Amino acid sequence: MTVNTPSDHASGLTLHASPLDAFFTPTGVAVIGASANPNKLSYGILRNLTSFGYRGAVYPVNPGRDKILGLPCYPTITAVPDPLDLAVIVVPAPVCPAALHECGVRGVKAAIVISGGFREVGPAGLALEEELLEIARAHGMRLIGPNCVGTLDAYSGLDTTFIRTMPEPGDIAFISQSGAICGGILEWTAGKGVGFSRFATLGNSADVTETDLIEALADDPRTKVIVAYLEAIKDGPRFIEVASRVTPHKPILVIKAGTTEAGTRAVSSHTGSLAGAMAAYNAAFKQSGVLRVDDVEELFNFALALAYGPLPRGHRVAIVTNAGGPASLAADALEEAGLTMPPPSEATRDFLAAHTCSEAQLGNPIDMLGGADAADYEMAIGALLADPAFDAVLPILVPQALVSPAAVAEAIGRASSAVPDKPVVTCFMGDEAVREPMIALHRHRIALYQFPKQAARALGVMWRYAEGKEGKEGKEGEGERRFTEMASGKRRPLVGLPSDRTHLGEAEARPVLAAYDIDQPAAGLARTAAEAGQIAEKIGFPVALKIVSPDIFHKSEMGGITLKLGSVDQVHAAFEEMLARVQKRQPEARIEGVLVTQMAPPGHELIVGMRRDPQFGPLLMFGLGGIYVELLKDVAFRVAPFSRAETLAMIGETHAGKLLGGLRGQPPADIDAVAEVIERVARLALDHPQVQEIDINPLIAYETGQGVLAVDVRMVVNPPENAADA
Amino acid sequence: MTVNTPSDHASGLTLHASPLDAFFTPTGVAVIGASANPNKLSYGILRNLTSFGYRGAVYPVNPGRDKILGLPCYPTITAVPDPLDLAVIVVPAPVCPAALHECGVRGVKAAIVISGGFREVGPAGLALEEELLEIARAHGMRLIGPNCVGTLDAYSGLDTTFIRTMPEPGDIAFISQSGAICGGILEWTAGKGVGFSRFATLGNSADVTETDLIEALADDPRTKVIVAYLEAIKDGPRFIEVASRVTPHKPILVIKAGTTEAGTRAVSSHTGSLAGAMAAYNAAFKQSGVLRVDDVEELFNFALALAYGPLPRGHRVAIVTNAGGPASLAADALEEAGLTMPPPSEATRDFLAAHTCSEAQLGNPIDMLGGADAADYEMAIGALLADPAFDAVLPILVPQALVSPAAVAEAIGRASSAVPDKPVVTCFMGDEAVREPMIALHRHRIALYQFPKQAARALGVMWRYAEGKEGKEGKEGEGERRFTEMASGKRRPLVGLPSDRTHLGEAEARPVLAAYDIDQPAAGLARTAAEAGQIAEKIGFPVALKIVSPDIFHKSEMGGITLKLGSVDQVHAAFEEMLARVQKRQPEARIEGVLVTQMAPPGHELIVGMRRDPQFGPLLMFGLGGIYVELLKDVAFRVAPFSRAETLAMIGETHAGKLLGGLRGQPPADIDAVAEVIERVARLALDHPQVQEIDINPLIAYETGQGVLAVDVRMVVNPPENAADA
Repeated sequence: MTVNTPSDHASGLTLHASPLDAFFTPTGVAVIGASANPNKLSYGILRNLTSFGYRGAVYPVNPGRDKILGLPCYPTITAVPDPLDLAVIVVPAPVCPAALHECGVRGVKAAIVISGGFREVGPAGLALEEELLEIARAHGMRLIGPNCVGTLDAYSGLDTTFIRTMPEPGDIAFISQSGAICGGILEWTAGKGVGFSRFATLGNSADVTETDLIEALADDPRTKVIVAYLEAIKDGPRFIEVASRVTPHKPILVIKAGTTEAGTRAVSSHTGSLAGAMAAYNAAFKQSGVLRVDDVEELFNFALALAYGPLPRGHRVAIVTNAGGPASLAADALEEAGLTMPPPSEATRDFLAAHTCSEAQLGNPIDMLGGADAADYEMAIGALLADPAFDAVLPILVPQALVSPAAVAEAIGRASSAVPDKPVVTCFMGDEAVREPMIALHRHRIALYQFPKQAARALGVMWRYAEGKEGKEGKEGEGERRFTEMASGKRRPLVGLPSDRTHLGEAEARPVLAAYDIDQPAAGLARTAAEAGQIAEKIGFPVALKIVSPDIFHKSEMGGITLKLGSVDQVHAAFEEMLARVQKRQPEARIEGVLVTQMAPPGHELIVGMRRDPQFGPLLMFGLGGIYVELLKDVAFRVAPFSRAETLAMIGETHAGKLLGGLRGQPPADIDAVAEVIERVARLALDHPQVQEIDINPLIAYETGQGVLAVDVRMVVNPPENAADA
Repeated sequence: MTVNTPSDHASGLTLHASPLDAFFTPTGVAVIGASANPNKLSYGILRNLTSFGYRGAVYPVNPGRDKILGLPCYPTITAVPDPLDLAVIVVPAPVCPAALHECGVRGVKAAIVISGGFREVGPAGLALEEELLEIARAHGMRLIGPNCVGTLDAYSGLDTTFIRTMPEPGDIAFISQSGAICGGILEWTAGKGVGFSRFATLGNSADVTETDLIEALADDPRTKVIVAYLEAIKDGPRFIEVASRVTPHKPILVIKAGTTEAGTRAVSSHTGSLAGAMAAYNAAFKQSGVLRVDDVEELFNFALALAYGPLPRGHRVAIVTNAGGPASLAADALEEAGLTMPPPSEATRDFLAAHTCSEAQLGNPIDMLGGADAADYEMAIGALLADPAFDAVLPILVPQALVSPAAVAEAIGRASSAVPDKPVVTCFMGDEAVREPMIALHRHRIALYQFPKQAARALGVMWRYAEGKEGKEGKEGEGERRFTEMASGKRRPLVGLPSDRTHLGEAEARPVLAAYDIDQPAAGLARTAAEAGQIAEKIGFPVALKIVSPDIFHKSEMGGITLKLGSVDQVHAAFEEMLARVQKRQPEARIEGVLVTQMAPPGHELIVGMRRDPQFGPLLMFGLGGIYVELLKDVAFRVAPFSRAETLAMIGETHAGKLLGGLRGQPPADIDAVAEVIERVARLALDHPQVQEIDINPLIAYETGQGVLAVDVRMVVNPPENAADA
């Protein structure tokens, strides 16, 4: 991790430790296309660059002007003197490539292209955008945009946006694929004492992506929390890789837009399965420790709490209040967030009894009633923070005629400073009346919320992050292990794949599973009744017969499945009947034979599936199988590769997992064997990119030590011409 | 419904149409215990009574003073002249009864007891509170409190609270079991242009309850939405009755505190099953059309939208925006709330194309990009409201440097006024910068939210209410029907109940179900192996044997169940083996015999249960039965009585209901027979208050027309001495 001392920033100098630092703390910035017209965006940018204390050099580039905003203008970027390491380009799209090229020639290493008119307007724009990227690569430049709103750094005072507000310096960095959201956020946080470190809008992400910025902000000592508004992720596996490294040290909060059909249409022309895409995103966030939030307001409520800290070391919260109703709403929300509210220790209870009015409620919530003043809050919070029974304190104030909210805020600040290793998160109900105390508390690094539920949920997310972080630290090297554990399986060839088909039934897919050592009922392909009888005798009764045909998708509806055959005679008869039935119902179907399979004994019916996600790669699914798949949708997802710990976590998330663990005194099932199958399917998908889908349904699980059987399987593969690795 | 014309209110006169009007529009108010000390609550009340334009008479009652706040003081309430119809009592608890008695003697018909020190402090306080109620009843007085914060009416200017803020006159009435929540709400809404009609805090609800106030506010023409903060409901059945009558005409929004263990401890010393209590509350709210909200902020966000209206006549929403990101978050939230976003009609699209910039996105969301100004919003909203493709419009504005939010607000107001029959709900992102437009839009009766999700969810609740209302109107007389339909079943005696037991197994409970015509497998009680064989032959093979003993609760673990017996010999042998096994495992158990039952053929395993809820009465449960009850908790609840429409809605809420409807081409099951069993169990519980619990698990359902079988049943009844109705 890089160490940037405050004085480096204060002097406007930077260590350029991260290749992206030039976007936030450049020594000098040129604005290419700077306008003298106050109604133009480029004028707004120049104004912002000179308004917020940025101490580097600022150079307008405009051949038609001598000076803008009192700054000397340069006809071209080539004419701009040192220091210069960032160019902001605000010229029409068609001339952007030429402008960027000149930047490269001049030796500028970072450029922000604000202009729109690229990928978002169609093929011609896309070609222009690709040209920009080529030029950047050729000159070793990094590029943010095009079609973005720029960057800002509240410490260096750099502001390359045209948004009118500069936030106070603080701990929260914000990465956004929407410039407008940034503007809205700045408007909303203005005047609340909420501080930010850096803002970056990504635009079309031709070069610098959300993942690049997360990596860079992880090394920024001023940034304590990384917050992102994302519509899409460019390189899924790299995002998981980077985020997994960052989240044990710094929380990442993400709001993902486009989680529904309507929302997706609003952000892209995505055509794949939305449910599948969302499952992949959610799995990726979960695996990499990213906290997903579905609301802009919560994004910042949560960021504030995580930025201020400290993290709670446990889940036990004391509420102290001057009003019962809001406390009970907070209590409900705390419990929903997985926190608990034990009573105070006896000593604390006695102390509180001696120092509060006689009607005060001393359980938890501690309700000091409407007369409680600042001194009461300071006394009670001090006692509760000192009580080993609690990991955090949530003071609630409903403003009363005779109590000064500002005085209570100061009292809370003092009590909290005295015990700096436990978090205090507050709720003051109100708006105008609590504005001043809010700013005061934020100065004390204590979050103030206007509603009980917000405060409780903020504590909830602190605990969720603290717990997850502990889990990650306990699993040191998890990031590497997920690869090594998965890689330990040997790559096997895709045996016996028919070259002319993409949709494979059980008969064709069985050898592929077998190559990956996934147990299946014994079986053989019979072309005659006699052959079927021989196979059945060999594998033992009872057996099932299943028609094998590339043209039959719903075997049972075509009469192509017969179960529980107990003798050779029954097999012979069933074979002939099946062929006759199928030929009658679907005369044109090509029949390749009949699969004779051992009947699997009853057990827990599960599903293990894989879909290849375009962003993230193999997405594994596990859950209750059989008829319950569609009804209950009891499934969990992970993106491969993952470690055994993740496999078990995935199983544990489902009802099926609880069933396997042994319900109501039933013996537990062979969870390790189930985990092994999930991982082998994942391995198979990682080894063979042409495999698009796998469904084992049902996978039947037996008691511990008795293993599992893949009773039916379907696969979808790309045609061989696309299969470079076959 | 009472008609109060504006002039009645404006003149301070009232029609006293509702017996509770005196709490809001009295002709004169006395404050008993009025203090001249500005630090006392009673002083605050007197100040408020004289601060907000209340035009009735105000009388401080205090024997030690001549004047307070310039008003002449009276030594006792008896000395107070007319007009007088409301007393506010703020004296110590022990002297409250005497004060209330004097009010009764003076002929005052309404009293608010602000003082605490009653039920909430223990048995002595409870006795005092009961004394208050007796006095009120004796004098025909209505009583709000004790231990409350009073009432206010924004139209009459009456304010009997000591809260420092009086809201603007508006459409929202607020009933609260927490005085502090009222204070917090008033603080939060101050300065936002949000108006209220009436506030009432209930305190201990010795006399006037939440249901009384809902009934009264239903008749208040100024109140368009009733909002309530509730910790408990006093009379469950009456609440359902009243709310069911009100919600088709006026929305009721409720936030229920105490939904978790911690939250419940915070509001009461409730000891029953919390999960059961919450299920009863949720069922009651659902059946009576009450919209439950779990967050104070949403309570008011939703109330505002419902107050302003009009209700959407369908679910199709157009978003018009100057920024893509917020629009996509709104789109996600709209879809989650059950709304849709179809594209505009071709004509509208052409019109928009001709009137917006060339890069504008004209699907839905309609994104006019950052340059959009007030005229653009007015044009687009006008076109979208006129388009029959939409039922509502959601404009979003992210403030931009060159666009005036105030001008956009006025433009939205104009466009909306031109098409008054479709709702417009807006999102302006920001805080200080959107304060003025917020007030302006509220004047236009258009709700403004600061986050896209809030606006989308507000539209969602408008649609949910509109849809539910339509359902209710379609089911005219539902309130009565639910009684008559349920009552149509004849009351049957509880046949064959053993007098010495409260927990009944299958053998004892079977006759009770049979009396209510619920089909069960044929069965008979055998005391010898020979008898068992005879019974088995009579009912037909295969049969099951189940031990009957008051001492054995887990029959299968004691070896007390044997299934699938196919012959008399097997029955004989199984009988002897069972007795031996049970006697060995639980030697002290009293054996009454063995139940021989027909084996029910396989079908859908369901559960039908009943628990008697202390607040609401019989709470019926339906869902997936067998081992899935505990694992999946796939259950729905209703409070009896209810109509067939409600029974079917209850079934439809569960996965089990979907299974019964016929999944993947399976034949549908006999849903009417299932509904009949639910209603017969409800009827049984209504007929016999001593029945505390019933569990039919499994109830097996067969194909349509094939009926159902109650395969096992347990009951819990109160001891006969409590059973006045047995």
